[in-house]
Amino acid sequence: MHIILASASPRRRELLSQIGLEYEVAPSTVKEEMEGALPAEIVQGLAVQKAEDVFRKMKEAGAKDFLVIGADTVVSLEGAVMGKPADVEDACRMLDSLQGRTHQVYTGVALLGEKEGGAAFRRIFHEKTDVTMYPMTKEEIAAYVETKEPMDKAGAYGIQGRCAAHIEKIDGDYNNVVGLPAGRLYQELKKCGI
Amino acid sequence: MHIILASASPRRRELLSQIGLEYEVAPSTVKEEMEGALPAEIVQGLAVQKAEDVFRKMKEAGAKDFLVIGADTVVSLEGAVMGKPADVEDACRMLDSLQGRTHQVYTGVALLGEKEGGAAFRRIFHEKTDVTMYPMTKEEIAAYVETKEPMDKAGAYGIQGRCAAHIEKIDGDYNNVVGLPAGRLYQELKKCGI
Repeated sequence: MHIILASASPRRRELLSQIGLEYEVAPSTVKEEMEGALPAEIVQGLAVQKAEDVFRKMKEAGAKDFLVIGADTVVSLEGAVMGKPADVEDACRMLDSLQGRTHQVYTGVALLGEKEGGAAFRRIFHEKTDVTMYPMTKEEIAAYVETKEPMDKAGAYGIQGRCAAHIEKIDGDYNNVVGLPAGRLYQELKKCGI
Repeated sequence: MHIILASASPRRRELLSQIGLEYEVAPSTVKEEMEGALPAEIVQGLAVQKAEDVFRKMKEAGAKDFLVIGADTVVSLEGAVMGKPADVEDACRMLDSLQGRTHQVYTGVALLGEKEGGAAFRRIFHEKTDVTMYPMTKEEIAAYVETKEPMDKAGAYGIQGRCAAHIEKIDGDYNNVVGLPAGRLYQELKKCGI
C-alpha cells in the first residue's frame, strides 16, 4: 500500500522513517479552519482537513490502494490553545507562560485510505502528552528564542532540540510532542491491516 | 570550563550537542564493577567509577578548570536489572519480558570537576523514567532484533530508533531513556555555576 504524508513537516517525515515506513510527501494546500473548542477537537479537525484535501487529489489522479496521513499539533495551557508564534515577542510570551509548569500537547491524526478492492477506511484519533518545564529566566528565554528554533513550532519550543535542557518530564508519548504519535500510529496501522 | 564526557556512547554525545554544550570525549577504560543492589545505586556507582577514572587521568595530565561527566543506564523490571543483551536470544528474551507492561529506566550521572582556583566539586544524581510498551508479537520481536538495533542497548531496545513504534508512553525524562537526562543535567550544571 502506498502511504502519503499530507504534511510538509520534516519532523513528521523523520518519525515515519524512524519506525520504518516507506512513504511519499504531498503537503495539503487546504486553507485550514479551526473547528471546535477543545484542543482534541481542533487537532482532529485540522488533521482531517489536511488528509481529505490530499485524499481527494489522489482520487482525482486515479490512485488506488493508498493511505493518506494527516496530522496537526497544538499546545494547550489550562485549556487555551497555542499554535506557532507570530513573531519573536510572541515566542517569548508563550515560553514565559509555559516555563515552570505543566502543559498539554495534542496531536490529531487522520488516516484516510482506500484498499485494493475499493473499500475505503477512515480512522481519526488524537494523543495527549503532559509536558513539565523547569523554570526559565528571561535571559534563558531570550537566548533560546535567538536560536530561531521556536519560530515554526506550536508553543514556541522544540522538545527534540535545544529546549530539551528546559524539560523536566513528560507523561505520554514523546513523539506526540515532536509532531506524530509514532507508537499509536503504528498500532492503528496494524488494525487497518497495513 | 573544559567539559569531558567519560563515555563512548554516540547517543550521549548527541544529547550534549543537542543542548548546546561544547565538550570532548575521553571514554573511561576502568573495569566497571556493579555495586549496590538497587538500580539507582548501581547506575550512580558505575557513573562515578567512569568519571573518577577520567578525572584521575586529567589531573595526572595537569589539567585545570575542567568537568568530567560520567553516566550509566540500566533497565529495571520489577526491581531486576537488565544491562545490554549478550546475544540475539538474550535480546528476544528481554523484549518478551518488557512488552505489554511498564518498566523503569535509570540513568546515573557523576559530575566531577575542578575550578580555576583548584576547588573541587562533585555532584552525583540519577533520574528514573517509567516506560510502557505496547504488546509485541514474537514476530515483531524477531523482526526488531533482526535490525541489530537492540544489541548495544540496555534492555535491548532503542526508544529513539525503530522501537518507537512499540512504546505506548513514558513518565519522566525521555532523554534519560536515551542515555542522559539532558534537562536535569543542564539544571545541575547551572547549580555548579557552569
